[in-house]
Amino acid sequence: MEPIGFIRTPFPEKFGIPRQPGLAPSAVGNLTLEPQFQKEGVFDGLEEADFLWLVFYFHQQKGEWKPKIRPPRAGGNHKRGVFATRSPNRPNPIGLSVVKLLSVDRKTNTLQLGGVDLLDGTPILDVKPYVPYSDCHPEADFQFAHKPPDPVSVVWTEEALQNVPQELKQLADEVLCWAPRPAYQNDEREYGTTLRNFNLRWRVVEGKVQVLSSSVVAQGPGST
Amino acid sequence: MEPIGFIRTPFPEKFGIPRQPGLAPSAVGNLTLEPQFQKEGVFDGLEEADFLWLVFYFHQQKGEWKPKIRPPRAGGNHKRGVFATRSPNRPNPIGLSVVKLLSVDRKTNTLQLGGVDLLDGTPILDVKPYVPYSDCHPEADFQFAHKPPDPVSVVWTEEALQNVPQELKQLADEVLCWAPRPAYQNDEREYGTTLRNFNLRWRVVEGKVQVLSSSVVAQGPGST
Repeated sequence: MEPIGFIRTPFPEKFGIPRQPGLAPSAVGNLTLEPQFQKEGVFDGLEEADFLWLVFYFHQQKGEWKPKIRPPRAGGNHKRGVFATRSPNRPNPIGLSVVKLLSVDRKTNTLQLGGVDLLDGTPILDVKPYVPYSDCHPEADFQFAHKPPDPVSVVWTEEALQNVPQELKQLADEVLCWAPRPAYQNDEREYGTTLRNFNLRWRVVEGKVQVLSSSVVAQGPGST
Repeated sequence: MEPIGFIRTPFPEKFGIPRQPGLAPSAVGNLTLEPQFQKEGVFDGLEEADFLWLVFYFHQQKGEWKPKIRPPRAGGNHKRGVFATRSPNRPNPIGLSVVKLLSVDRKTNTLQLGGVDLLDGTPILDVKPYVPYSDCHPEADFQFAHKPPDPVSVVWTEEALQNVPQELKQLADEVLCWAPRPAYQNDEREYGTTLRNFNLRWRVVEGKVQVLSSSVVAQGPGST
């Protein structure tokens, strides 16, 4: 197994990343094939698909897998079997993610993808077209995660809005409306989430996410 | 990467296997965890899902991957980029398959799965619950494979019906109704398909699959 490429995303850190793809449509990722996979024709016909599967490696997982884990949705209290979750911490740390195909650039061998939920720099093992008739099962039930959590309002202080370009605000609204903190922390403590090269300080007050401040951080290797 | 188990299926040979999961609901597979993954609780909560993803290794792929391939649906004439297909012959030979969860046997650490499309003995890398709200995209389009091919009638000669138990006939009807031959072979030539330990000879005549004969074959390591 050898990564076909390393995706660039607006998420240099794990904290704040939507827990499923598609929850933040403005989260755009760019996947450029590594030189050995840049062969003529590899993407031919890909534009006929509007959604793609990314098969990826959870490269930041550390330590041994455990038979039972505490998924964040369960508030961190309830344990479930690892195979009954989509947790990154699994025997073979392979992840699946459906993303929207925005464009194919054949000159640079790059796919532009929407709604990504991957850490910047994630090694991608495969790209496959989403085949609705075999991949889409509207009749499927999964009681544990029946629907996404309800989004909440995101309000910005004037201070936080200064310096933040409009498209970053759009992305931040989509990311923070899920109040992406551990479910058991239901108080007003402050969090920091880094999107691209902006760090945002926020907290939850009366059921709304309040963005308190924003600052530009050094653009490390993990930023786009 | 280490297989969590090797699935037992009714398909000892590639020829005839449905090209997508779910096309033959009676194709039941059994996945038993390898000893090192038989830990208490690994399946806890799994019954809340009725569909599962199998992430597997295309273990019978040989040779180098090619940038463009001829998918069977295209009649073998039209080439497509490897990333625009679900072909087994890809840079990292990882496959995805949605199957129905029929039962969980905690004593033997075995999952019974319906609608499998995998070769007997396929190494399974992961099992994940199917999460409808993130995995199911009814709005998705893929012009190349918009819907499954149309099934055809399967008729049996009296000779072929002898010796064939009812549940094998049911499975054979579901498998052969897709006339699983290369699309460019549109003549009346005979084929042989092995299901479990039965070899069936068949051909396509006037748009119907005619099962000509059946025989019991030696039950190799690949049979269930």
